[in-house]
Amino acid sequence: MWIEEKINGYKQSYEVVETIEEKESSFQKIAVHQTKDFGKMMSIDGCGMFCEKDAFIYHEMMVHTALCSHPLVEKVLVIGGGDGGCANELLKYPDVEVDFVEIDEAVCEMSKKHFPEFSDVWNADNINLKIEDGVEFVKKTIDNTYDIVLIDSTDPIKHAKALFDKEFYENVSRILKPNGVCVAQGESYWMEKETQKKILSNMYDSFKIIMPYKFEMYSYPGVLWNFIFMSQKYHPTADLILDKSDLLDGLKYYNSDIHRACFALPTNIKKEYADIIKI
Amino acid sequence: MWIEEKINGYKQSYEVVETIEEKESSFQKIAVHQTKDFGKMMSIDGCGMFCEKDAFIYHEMMVHTALCSHPLVEKVLVIGGGDGGCANELLKYPDVEVDFVEIDEAVCEMSKKHFPEFSDVWNADNINLKIEDGVEFVKKTIDNTYDIVLIDSTDPIKHAKALFDKEFYENVSRILKPNGVCVAQGESYWMEKETQKKILSNMYDSFKIIMPYKFEMYSYPGVLWNFIFMSQKYHPTADLILDKSDLLDGLKYYNSDIHRACFALPTNIKKEYADIIKI
Repeated sequence: MWIEEKINGYKQSYEVVETIEEKESSFQKIAVHQTKDFGKMMSIDGCGMFCEKDAFIYHEMMVHTALCSHPLVEKVLVIGGGDGGCANELLKYPDVEVDFVEIDEAVCEMSKKHFPEFSDVWNADNINLKIEDGVEFVKKTIDNTYDIVLIDSTDPIKHAKALFDKEFYENVSRILKPNGVCVAQGESYWMEKETQKKILSNMYDSFKIIMPYKFEMYSYPGVLWNFIFMSQKYHPTADLILDKSDLLDGLKYYNSDIHRACFALPTNIKKEYADIIKI
Repeated sequence: MWIEEKINGYKQSYEVVETIEEKESSFQKIAVHQTKDFGKMMSIDGCGMFCEKDAFIYHEMMVHTALCSHPLVEKVLVIGGGDGGCANELLKYPDVEVDFVEIDEAVCEMSKKHFPEFSDVWNADNINLKIEDGVEFVKKTIDNTYDIVLIDSTDPIKHAKALFDKEFYENVSRILKPNGVCVAQGESYWMEKETQKKILSNMYDSFKIIMPYKFEMYSYPGVLWNFIFMSQKYHPTADLILDKSDLLDGLKYYNSDIHRACFALPTNIKKEYADIIKI
């Protein structure tokens, strides 16, 4: 059996040795498969979310790119990321307090059971897991609460759609401190360019710096994917804090060279995006 | 119909609207297909070589990364690249003389017919096309002939295999001037790591600087692919010549940010490759 992801006339497929567990929650269909070459893979509604082979790229590139662009991080909000991978990466900063808001408890349960590499998250004193809707959570949160907000969501469909709306970004900007930083899953400027352009336009009025950056995920169609860095003050390359970035222990992907490099944009994207990004 | 590329438990596929032409040469089976989303695609022995959507990334990243790392380029050798894409990119440097050595005339013929965007190559005064074996060509070439050698080959199989041998790199190093630069198609540190490690080991004794760098190709399995930069003197990032790099007209992908960024290596690759690359 093969898990297949298809975008128009392009397909990416992974050979599955065994589907270990499938669960239908109130929000989505979650499954964990044993693949032939990529270790265990979690899929949601048939789309690969992450696999053992490449999950570290996603989590390191989301978390450390944000935290190493900010000099003093005390309070972080993670929206989504129910697998625990991003929260787990945040444990490398022991003084940081994390609010971790996931809408679907079933994702956490599946991860707890099948991805023990993230297991420290579930009992960590500085991680406060809240099972609720991220959109409602940011609405009710008071101004200037967080140094960092990480939006680790699925694609902009179903319940995740509102996590890409203009109103949502306005709220994220409001609950960040004035020097806060936000990083969001941002689709891809290759495979999902029109979707990404719409997302960037929705962010536009809420932040002074808006920059897509690049990472690779074998379980995403087209492999090349983007996060979006947003802030009012800190610039991700000019304000990169080398003391943090190069002293992080036990990382497999992220380093300060990669941090600087991931923000380089191809000429055609730079031109096409001139009016929707803020470098 | 779909063109499918499979590496173990991973597959990448492209929907084909029509196969425009197929030709069996003495070396390989060449085909040109109209794909649904990626424009026309040339395949060799069933493997995607390039398509209209992404060819510019490959050609710009091979040619300009080499030429913008060298202050005075007069003579360039292109081995392979029978489609003409790299040679076409070299036309942006009108004072450069190019020897263009392709083993299989049928590749040139197919490209002439179906990829008119490279058509200037076939009549350019400063491009000398020679239909012969690149391995034999470098053997018989005298020392210190070229400023740049570009090895635009298929995978290390069949007639292309000898283009990845230790002896071949020794000859390339010998026919380069002492400050010469070589860039070679170098497989991938994700999908073809063991092959790439072998290639890097074969290069090791012939060059003082050996650095893999990254680009994306939708028609290659795993998308993320590498060229290898080799030289005795110039360092691709320390010696980058901004005057050249930022004044190149009409490029779609390459710019000086991308040039610097493409050499950043993930931490795990940096560690694993410590003894086979020379930074």
